[in-house]
Amino acid sequence: MSTANSRLILGVWRIADWQMHPSQVADLVEGCLDMGMNTFDLADIYAGYRCEALFGEALASRPALKSRIKLISKCGIALVTPNRPQHRVKHYNTSSAHIVASAENSLAQMGVEQLEMLLIHRPDPLMDADEIAEAFFQLKQAGKVAQFGVSNFLPHQLELLQSRLDEPLAANQVEVSLLHTDTLFDGTLDQCQRLRIKPQAWSPLGGGKLSAEPAETPLGQVLARLGAELGVSREQLAIAWLLRHPAGIQPVLGSGKLDRLQQLVAAQEIMLDRQQWFELLEAAMGRPMP
Amino acid sequence: MSTANSRLILGVWRIADWQMHPSQVADLVEGCLDMGMNTFDLADIYAGYRCEALFGEALASRPALKSRIKLISKCGIALVTPNRPQHRVKHYNTSSAHIVASAENSLAQMGVEQLEMLLIHRPDPLMDADEIAEAFFQLKQAGKVAQFGVSNFLPHQLELLQSRLDEPLAANQVEVSLLHTDTLFDGTLDQCQRLRIKPQAWSPLGGGKLSAEPAETPLGQVLARLGAELGVSREQLAIAWLLRHPAGIQPVLGSGKLDRLQQLVAAQEIMLDRQQWFELLEAAMGRPMP
Amino acid sequence: MSTANSRLILGVWRIADWQMHPSQVADLVEGCLDMGMNTFDLADIYAGYRCEALFGEALASRPALKSRIKLISKCGIALVTPNRPQHRVKHYNTSSAHIVASAENSLAQMGVEQLEMLLIHRPDPLMDADEIAEAFFQLKQAGKVAQFGVSNFLPHQLELLQSRLDEPLAANQVEVSLLHTDTLFDGTLDQCQRLRIKPQAWSPLGGGKLSAEPAETPLGQVLARLGAELGVSREQLAIAWLLRHPAGIQPVLGSGKLDRLQQLVAAQEIMLDRQQWFELLEAAMGRPMP
Repeated sequence: MSTANSRLILGVWRIADWQMHPSQVADLVEGCLDMGMNTFDLADIYAGYRCEALFGEALASRPALKSRIKLISKCGIALVTPNRPQHRVKHYNTSSAHIVASAENSLAQMGVEQLEMLLIHRPDPLMDADEIAEAFFQLKQAGKVAQFGVSNFLPHQLELLQSRLDEPLAANQVEVSLLHTDTLFDGTLDQCQRLRIKPQAWSPLGGGKLSAEPAETPLGQVLARLGAELGVSREQLAIAWLLRHPAGIQPVLGSGKLDRLQQLVAAQEIMLDRQQWFELLEAAMGRPMP
Repeated sequence: MSTANSRLILGVWRIADWQMHPSQVADLVEGCLDMGMNTFDLADIYAGYRCEALFGEALASRPALKSRIKLISKCGIALVTPNRPQHRVKHYNTSSAHIVASAENSLAQMGVEQLEMLLIHRPDPLMDADEIAEAFFQLKQAGKVAQFGVSNFLPHQLELLQSRLDEPLAANQVEVSLLHTDTLFDGTLDQCQRLRIKPQAWSPLGGGKLSAEPAETPLGQVLARLGAELGVSREQLAIAWLLRHPAGIQPVLGSGKLDRLQQLVAAQEIMLDRQQWFELLEAAMGRPMP
Repeated sequence: MSTANSRLILGVWRIADWQMHPSQVADLVEGCLDMGMNTFDLADIYAGYRCEALFGEALASRPALKSRIKLISKCGIALVTPNRPQHRVKHYNTSSAHIVASAENSLAQMGVEQLEMLLIHRPDPLMDADEIAEAFFQLKQAGKVAQFGVSNFLPHQLELLQSRLDEPLAANQVEVSLLHTDTLFDGTLDQCQRLRIKPQAWSPLGGGKLSAEPAETPLGQVLARLGAELGVSREQLAIAWLLRHPAGIQPVLGSGKLDRLQQLVAAQEIMLDRQQWFELLEAAMGRPMP
C-alpha cells in the first residue's frame, strides 16, 4: 500500500451515470490501484447525495480495498433535492455542526474509519473561519479526517481560513484546464505554489468539451499537430499540459472506463517542453502572450 | 455609561436635512443612548463641512451627553464648496499635517476632548502610509483619538496602511447592504474577519432604495414573504441580514427619527437562519449561488 | 562616481532606431552622467536581441564609462525572430538555466563584469519560484548581479517570488503614466510602497502619446493650463506627476536626444501640489474621484 496520495485522482461524481454493479465499481477501484491511482474524490452532494452510498456498496463488496485507498470528500453545499426535503433554497452551510455531521455521514455511507481529506466545497459568504477551524480540530482529534482543504476558493478566502488553522491546508480543488485558464492568472495557482498547497484540477478535460473541440479551431489545430508529433491523444496532451505546471496540479479524472483511464495515466510520461506548453496555452486563449 | 461601542451606529451625515433645533438633536442623541446606541458617525465634510458644528451645538445645549457618547469622525476628502474657497478640484489629502489639523478641528467643532475613532475617508492614490502613521501616533499620544480606521479601502490599501502601524486598525467603513453585495465577495469582508477589524456598513438600507424596492422584484417578493413569516418590516430584515454576517458588521443608520430607529434597533432580536439569509442574498443578486 | 541608482533612468530599448555611431552613444551616456543620470535600462530582447551588443560597442569605444554607470537588464521572454531560429512561438522562460545563461550573455554583450539589476521581464505562468531563487542565488554569489527585480508583475506574482528569496526584490518595472493609471489602483504601487520596492515606470510619457494628446481633451487642457502657470512643458508635467507619487517611482526615459533628456531631468525641480496632481489625474481618467 502506498501511503501518499497519487498524483492522479479518480473523480467518482458521475458514479450513478456509470450504471455499474458494486462489484464492477470494485473492479474499477482495483484497476486504478494497479495503475498507481490510489486516491478517489467524492462529495456529500454528488449523484443527488447518493454517491458515497454507491461507492460504499462497492467497498462493502470487496472490503480489502478499504485499506489500500485514499478518500477525499467535501461538504458545505446544500442542494434542493427530493433527498433533502428541508432545503428550500440552494445554500451553503459551513457551520461547525454541519461540517462534523457531514464528514461523519460520509464515513458511515462509505463504511470507512477515516477520510484522507475533507474539503470545504465552495466559499461560503457566511463562512466563520473560527467555526470551521473548530470542526477541523474535532475531526482531526477523533481520527476521522487526516487532512483538510478547500475547493473553488479565491486567494483571499483561503487566506482567511488558513489564518485560523494550525496546520497548512492541503489542497484547493479548482477548475483548471486548457478550456479554463483563469486560475493560472488570477492568483489561485500562485497562492498554491507559494503556500505549497496542492491544487487539484476538476474538469481537467473541460467536462468533455476538449474531446469535442473542433479540429479547425486554433486549439484543435495545435492539439492535432502536437498529438501527431508526439504520438499521443488530445486528452493525453491536456493532462500532460496540467502536469507540467510548477504548482503540482493533481488532475481529477472523471471516467469510469479503465481503458480510458489507462490512456490518461500514461500521459504522465509525456514531457512537454516550454514551447509546446505555450503553443497550447496561446491557442487555448486565442491570443499570444503579452 | 457603556465603555464599548454599540453594534448599531447613528449616522449624522444628513443632520442639516433634519431641520432640527439643537435641543431636538440632543433629544435624539439621548433617545439613542436609551436604546443602547452610544456611537455616532460624522465626518469633516458632511453637510458642506457643517455637520460637526451642528452636532456640536446639540452637545453644547446638553453637555452631560458628552461623557456618554462615542464619536467617529473622518478626514481626507477635500470638497469643492463655498466653505472651502481654496479648493479648485475635488481631491484627497492624507498628509500628516492635514490629518492632525482635521481631527483637531473636529474636536473643536463638537466641543469634545477625544474622538473614539478617526477614519481615513477614502483611499488616496497619494497615500504615504508613513505620514498617516505619524499623524495617528501624534493624535494618539495627545489623547485626541482613541482608535483609528479607514473607509472604502480595498484590501491592498488597508494592508499598506496597516503595515506601518503598531496597533491594528479598528474599522473599515464600507458600503454593504442587500443592494450592494460586492464587499461580500471581493475580499473586503474576508480581510476584516481575518484581521478582526470591524466592518461598518454605510447605507445599510441602500440609501432609501430598499424601502422603495418594488414588491414584484425577486428581492421584493422574498422581503414580503419573510417579513410576513417573521412579522417584521423589510428594513428590519435588511439590518438583521447584515448582523448575521460573521465579520460582525456594524450598520450605520442614517435616520433622524427615533421611532424609525427604535424599529431598526429591534432588528437585533431577529435571528435569520442560513436559508433565509441565502434566499435574501440570491434574490438580491438575481442568481443562485454557484 | 555615485554608488546609488539615479532616480531617472535612461531606457535604451530604441537604440537601433537612434541610428547612432558607438561614439555618439558614448556621448549620450556621458551626457546623462553629467546630468546625474547614471542608470541605464536594457533587456536581452530589445532591438531584436541586439540592444546589449550595440550598447556594448559604445562602452567598448569609451571603456572608462563602465565604472561610472549602473546597468539594468531583463530576461525571461523568448521572441520569434530571425536571431532566434529555434523559437517557434513567443513564450516565456524562467528556468534557472535560462536566467543564468541570459544574464551571463548580457554581461558578455556589454563587456562588463556586473549588472546592477536583473529583472524577470514578464510574469511567467510556468514560473517555478524556487528555480528563479536558485538562479538569483548563483548570480549573486558569482558577483554577476547586485540586485534582482521583476517587471509587469501583479502583486500575487511578486508575492510568490518574494516568498522564496532571502533578500527583498529591488524593483517592479511597470507601465505607469498619465495615460496608464491602472497600477495606481490595482495594488501594484501599493505593494511597492508596502514592501519598499522601487517601482520603475516604463513609457512614462505614454510612448509618445502624451506629446500627441490633442489640446482640446480634458487632459490636454489641464496640461496646457498648468504648463502655462508653471512655465513647463507637458512632458515635464507628466514626469513631475510621476515623481510626486509616494512609492518613489523611477521613470525610464526613452529618448536618445540629450536636449530632450535635459528638459525631462529638469522636471525633478517641479513640485506639484496635491490639487495640481489630482487635476491631472482626474483629467487623465475622465472622471472625478469618488
